[in-house]
Amino acid sequence: MTTVLKFGGTSVATIDQIKNIAQNINDRHCQGEQLLIVVSAMGKSTDRLLKMIHEISTTPSKRELDMLLATGEQVTIPLLSTALKELGCNAISLTGAQAGIQTTDHHAKARIESIASELILKHLEAGTIVVVAGFQGISATGDITTLGRGGSDTTAVALAASLKAKCEIYTDVDGIYTIDPRYNSKARKLHTISYVEMLEMASLGANVLETRAIEMAHKFKVPLYVGKSHTTLPGTHIIERNNTMESTVITGVSIDNNCLMASVKHLPFSQTNIANLFMNLASKNLNVDMISIAAPYNGHVTVSFTAEKNDVIEIQEVISNMKKELETIEITTNDQIVKLSVVGIGMVSHSGVAANIFRLFAEENINYYQVTTSEISISYTILESDVQRSIEIISKAYELEQ
Amino acid sequence: MTTVLKFGGTSVATIDQIKNIAQNINDRHCQGEQLLIVVSAMGKSTDRLLKMIHEISTTPSKRELDMLLATGEQVTIPLLSTALKELGCNAISLTGAQAGIQTTDHHAKARIESIASELILKHLEAGTIVVVAGFQGISATGDITTLGRGGSDTTAVALAASLKAKCEIYTDVDGIYTIDPRYNSKARKLHTISYVEMLEMASLGANVLETRAIEMAHKFKVPLYVGKSHTTLPGTHIIERNNTMESTVITGVSIDNNCLMASVKHLPFSQTNIANLFMNLASKNLNVDMISIAAPYNGHVTVSFTAEKNDVIEIQEVISNMKKELETIEITTNDQIVKLSVVGIGMVSHSGVAANIFRLFAEENINYYQVTTSEISISYTILESDVQRSIEIISKAYELEQ
Repeated sequence: MTTVLKFGGTSVATIDQIKNIAQNINDRHCQGEQLLIVVSAMGKSTDRLLKMIHEISTTPSKRELDMLLATGEQVTIPLLSTALKELGCNAISLTGAQAGIQTTDHHAKARIESIASELILKHLEAGTIVVVAGFQGISATGDITTLGRGGSDTTAVALAASLKAKCEIYTDVDGIYTIDPRYNSKARKLHTISYVEMLEMASLGANVLETRAIEMAHKFKVPLYVGKSHTTLPGTHIIERNNTMESTVITGVSIDNNCLMASVKHLPFSQTNIANLFMNLASKNLNVDMISIAAPYNGHVTVSFTAEKNDVIEIQEVISNMKKELETIEITTNDQIVKLSVVGIGMVSHSGVAANIFRLFAEENINYYQVTTSEISISYTILESDVQRSIEIISKAYELEQ
Repeated sequence: MTTVLKFGGTSVATIDQIKNIAQNINDRHCQGEQLLIVVSAMGKSTDRLLKMIHEISTTPSKRELDMLLATGEQVTIPLLSTALKELGCNAISLTGAQAGIQTTDHHAKARIESIASELILKHLEAGTIVVVAGFQGISATGDITTLGRGGSDTTAVALAASLKAKCEIYTDVDGIYTIDPRYNSKARKLHTISYVEMLEMASLGANVLETRAIEMAHKFKVPLYVGKSHTTLPGTHIIERNNTMESTVITGVSIDNNCLMASVKHLPFSQTNIANLFMNLASKNLNVDMISIAAPYNGHVTVSFTAEKNDVIEIQEVISNMKKELETIEITTNDQIVKLSVVGIGMVSHSGVAANIFRLFAEENINYYQVTTSEISISYTILESDVQRSIEIISKAYELEQ
């Protein structure tokens, strides 16, 4: 069975790091493993390229941007391949196009459509280590495309799916924790987590893996592993749901501190006005997350929603425009809030988690403004100042610490 | 008629230079010219890439080296294309592979086999400025290749040949001079020079254009122009031989100061020994240029030849090895010599140039060690200390100054 190893930009930031990774790959190759390596651009090289083109244009064509950014990974692959050859391995570098990664033509956020893996298979079967440039592909018209955020993870998982391989992602964190260790230094590292939990945690703010890559791993049942490069620390396996996991109710807590809460007050109550509010926001590509609508009072209603912190000015503009017709409305925004989510596949069979957390919050006088639930998660917007205390009580109640 | 413009690395070393070149291209495009641009890697970027890979291996695989170096030009093309779009032009960047530049698989020194120019033609006919990465192509197996030294000039001329276009090469010198202005500040800039003279001057040490590009321009009758980027100074046209040129006997003087003279003394005289000497040198890829063999004396002979300065140690090794069987031989090397060549298509019809220069050298007591002649050039090895004086007398005798 082939293993796909993916190394992110911080893992290959220097020549010494590239040599170090080559040594590890060589050790495994010598033990008979068939290896395909996916790498990102070195450290800050993407930033350097962006800085150059932004000196020319603030809105460069996305096709030209892809042409430029794709060079970042194309620098890493021959360097790693050369480092492997120096150790006596057979190794070959392939660009995304050469690796047969066919994508849509949506530059800067292309999606992989198919992988023509004949060339990769030929090299792997000959005992050659194949080093593929992550993040990039080629469109049907022969243009170089990039996959957007988290693209290299997606490349690795897609290649693993097409080769029926397992996939190991090496990054600068040593695995998936019950809680981001920046919030709770006693957070427990998970030995395993299911795809759906990982997906939920990633989409709720955990930044270790991109949701696209997890979705693809889930869809194609690619065994995934996340670990820290340049160490031997054990990481986390992301696998299909199984019995061992059902013993815990909550697997982890995610914190999203990139949100703000907006409240639109004195909105004349009608389904049309509420629908228009969200349609106007959507027409400006403003993502709205949690929504709560208070009971109407005197024919008026308050609609609250969370959105991304960066969007505050555009949200205010949308409301200003609506004020021309709906003179009574007012907007307040609060960026001192955080979205805290508890995630656990065990919730499906263990009812009462939400009720129990409501009780814990009540005992500790922690206010929450909005609550949403999915099958395996519950999210609360709470004040930033209450985050640490909330994490502590949930960690203790659900044994999330070491 | 399409014009191919080629800008070298020193012309696109900074973002400001790229913007400046875009402005010039835009001005010409607005006047209705159909333009294809070939660019090199920015300034020192190739050196930076080489430094990185040499930290990993002193002898990297040439395939991996090509993969790495090709990124240099791939960075320049979207930057220039974006700068052109900012000015309101339609522009598109193409890698060597996308531009249809098919090469042999001799990595690091591939030769262009054919150009599939359909895509370029489609864009040019739509009024789009096409910006192509110089120096690179793709082999029949889909590997990225580079063309070696002077490769971007060759790309430009090859594209011009395939499009039946003219070709303008912009570099950091403002044209072809009768003598390198570093040797004679009064050297005259040539308005025109013939392909064969340019080829002879380039192969004899003038560094403005690579011989490959000139050969190709000659073969396909591509009108060539060499000028200085970022200026409006008039440059030099390189064209087919014509009547106007025949009025001058000598067009220019080339100096090659990268040579040394080696003398192998006390070689037992036999055709076999002399042949073996040059075969042994050739087997180590040591280029030998001018050869002179003194008359045998006492059954021994002295063989002198010029070679590249860098090869001195390898040449001495070859002779050391031969000493095992031919104990009498000794080698001396002199790197204080220079090869001075006078070039002119007029020599074909004006006899006596060599004789006249022999006379001038005799009058001025300038020693020459070897002389070779071609149909349109005569080369002398002289002492470095005699170069300035030689240039002065030849310049005066043949009106090479302003």
